[in-house]
Amino acid sequence: MKVAVDAMGGDNAPQVVVRGAVEAASEMGIDIILVGDKDVVGKELGPCLQENNISIHHCREVVKMEEAPLKAVRKKRDSSIRVAFDLVKKGDVDAVVSAGNSGATLAAGILTLGRLEGVERPAIASIFPGEHGDVVLIDVGANVDCRPSHLFQFGIMAQAFAGSCLAMESPRIGLLSIGEEGSKGNEQVKMTRELFEQSHLNFVGNVEGRNVFTGDVDIIVCDGFVGNVALKIAEGVAEGMTKVLKDELAGSLRGRAAVLLGKGAFEKLRSRFNYEAFGGAPLLGINGVGIVCHGGSTPRAIKNAIFMAAKYVGKGVLEKMAYQLKNFDSDSTPLLKNEPAA
Amino acid sequence: MKVAVDAMGGDNAPQVVVRGAVEAASEMGIDIILVGDKDVVGKELGPCLQENNISIHHCREVVKMEEAPLKAVRKKRDSSIRVAFDLVKKGDVDAVVSAGNSGATLAAGILTLGRLEGVERPAIASIFPGEHGDVVLIDVGANVDCRPSHLFQFGIMAQAFAGSCLAMESPRIGLLSIGEEGSKGNEQVKMTRELFEQSHLNFVGNVEGRNVFTGDVDIIVCDGFVGNVALKIAEGVAEGMTKVLKDELAGSLRGRAAVLLGKGAFEKLRSRFNYEAFGGAPLLGINGVGIVCHGGSTPRAIKNAIFMAAKYVGKGVLEKMAYQLKNFDSDSTPLLKNEPAA
Repeated sequence: MKVAVDAMGGDNAPQVVVRGAVEAASEMGIDIILVGDKDVVGKELGPCLQENNISIHHCREVVKMEEAPLKAVRKKRDSSIRVAFDLVKKGDVDAVVSAGNSGATLAAGILTLGRLEGVERPAIASIFPGEHGDVVLIDVGANVDCRPSHLFQFGIMAQAFAGSCLAMESPRIGLLSIGEEGSKGNEQVKMTRELFEQSHLNFVGNVEGRNVFTGDVDIIVCDGFVGNVALKIAEGVAEGMTKVLKDELAGSLRGRAAVLLGKGAFEKLRSRFNYEAFGGAPLLGINGVGIVCHGGSTPRAIKNAIFMAAKYVGKGVLEKMAYQLKNFDSDSTPLLKNEPAA
Repeated sequence: MKVAVDAMGGDNAPQVVVRGAVEAASEMGIDIILVGDKDVVGKELGPCLQENNISIHHCREVVKMEEAPLKAVRKKRDSSIRVAFDLVKKGDVDAVVSAGNSGATLAAGILTLGRLEGVERPAIASIFPGEHGDVVLIDVGANVDCRPSHLFQFGIMAQAFAGSCLAMESPRIGLLSIGEEGSKGNEQVKMTRELFEQSHLNFVGNVEGRNVFTGDVDIIVCDGFVGNVALKIAEGVAEGMTKVLKDELAGSLRGRAAVLLGKGAFEKLRSRFNYEAFGGAPLLGINGVGIVCHGGSTPRAIKNAIFMAAKYVGKGVLEKMAYQLKNFDSDSTPLLKNEPAA
């Protein structure tokens, strides 16, 4: 198992990225190829460069966080993210992990590896810690102004991913809306609902924002604009609540004593609502394996993203996804429930 | 000041609604007219019926939570929500408060009182507890598939509301998107941004989901589909975190001791992320004052919603909103910054 890690991508690259990669290499024995400037990355890597299963693949350029993704990826042929996907294409590595510009990671993935057959728009899936287990939200920002067929394909892709990587048997798919009734929602949602209802997927109907946490559903499908807003609202509330509680408790002797006594509970809370745990959000629909991480990822998040990439490859998710996509017409019309497969 | 309260609306009506109304009547001396079945409401009211400033206005029908709003409001002419707005129209009361079907409240408001001049779509505004103060999110579910002109009008209406009811001087208006750059967002957002940029409103550009809590903005404008998802995600995270923390702390002796010691901090957290505090979400754009409450409102939420209604009336928000709307063309094209008013 070989994973190319974009050493130059992320708010605190390469330091944090290199640390996470080193942890992944030593804990799981995954072969890591750090893609980036050999001097900068080498300095960060220090004595770890001697390890057998970690190496550097040199490149000169970097796509910055604020750059327009497609333009930057097209222009910077020697950028770390593009070179990382080139390594996948050549068969030198099995997957890519990046905490850099997520739009650029998506663009580089599509440009270099292409899309799986039957996929109009690859998407980014994010995993939420639900009350009764993980919940996959797709898309969280790759595509805005989605057509119903795009949303429908997101469901198929997420099903293959969740079934293998999250060990969910026949994951339940919900459509994010503003009420559970079929009459609720915007035009996009109403049309998408029809596609799901006509298919043989395990579709449970519309779900609401709060279902992300109550977990009566395993996969929640939405437009990337809505999903990205949802993701950032969730992060904002979680951070806001943690901050208020911390500040309040730190402000008194009794509060500080409470922190000591409740340590276990606070840690549990932190780990449950901590986006580091999974570390990465898989790019679904490209013809290869790519995991994007939050720009502000910690070493632990990077490490977990590398584990996810390894699992993605090891479980043969890509092949399963390609197979499931083929069960649907190439023009994205789902098979009707009672219609025999062609 | 007279407020009509829809005694039959809400998951726990009339009990909870009556209790909240009684508190508002006694604490602030507001005259309350409870609209609903006189026997049911009278029984709930009990000895409080003797109070001078609280009375019952009888009606026979109720719009249920699950009913299709417009259809139900049209058909049930003697429903509590419709009768409440009729009282506003007749000049018998100054405002309506309801914890019932919010779509029906909106529909009854529009049907009975009409829209303010220059408003294509009335909207529901919700107030979030931001880190640096309140943040108004508009629309949170009244309208899906909004046109840019609708979103622009939401900004004007929210400005008038926040300026008066929340004492914000020149409130900063942001447009909810998935990145701060003007190039980010869907088509709807990009077109709306142009309208705001050309206007003389205090527009600060695109904001992200997390800005709802960091509060570098006072008003956040969005499509009702997106706003409703955002609202419910926020509620879901806040409830989920509270539950995890509670369960964890209750599970051990040390944890229970921590709860006792940290009591003040936990209460502060609860009050900060508690949607009861404001109690109500104002309907903006109808030609009258209406406040909608969460179906599961507590008496405190109902009381606070009545206070908000009283403030709305007392501060002359409706007149100010109508004036500000007139500063823009009736076809919703904003005045250009350097263009003299007609």
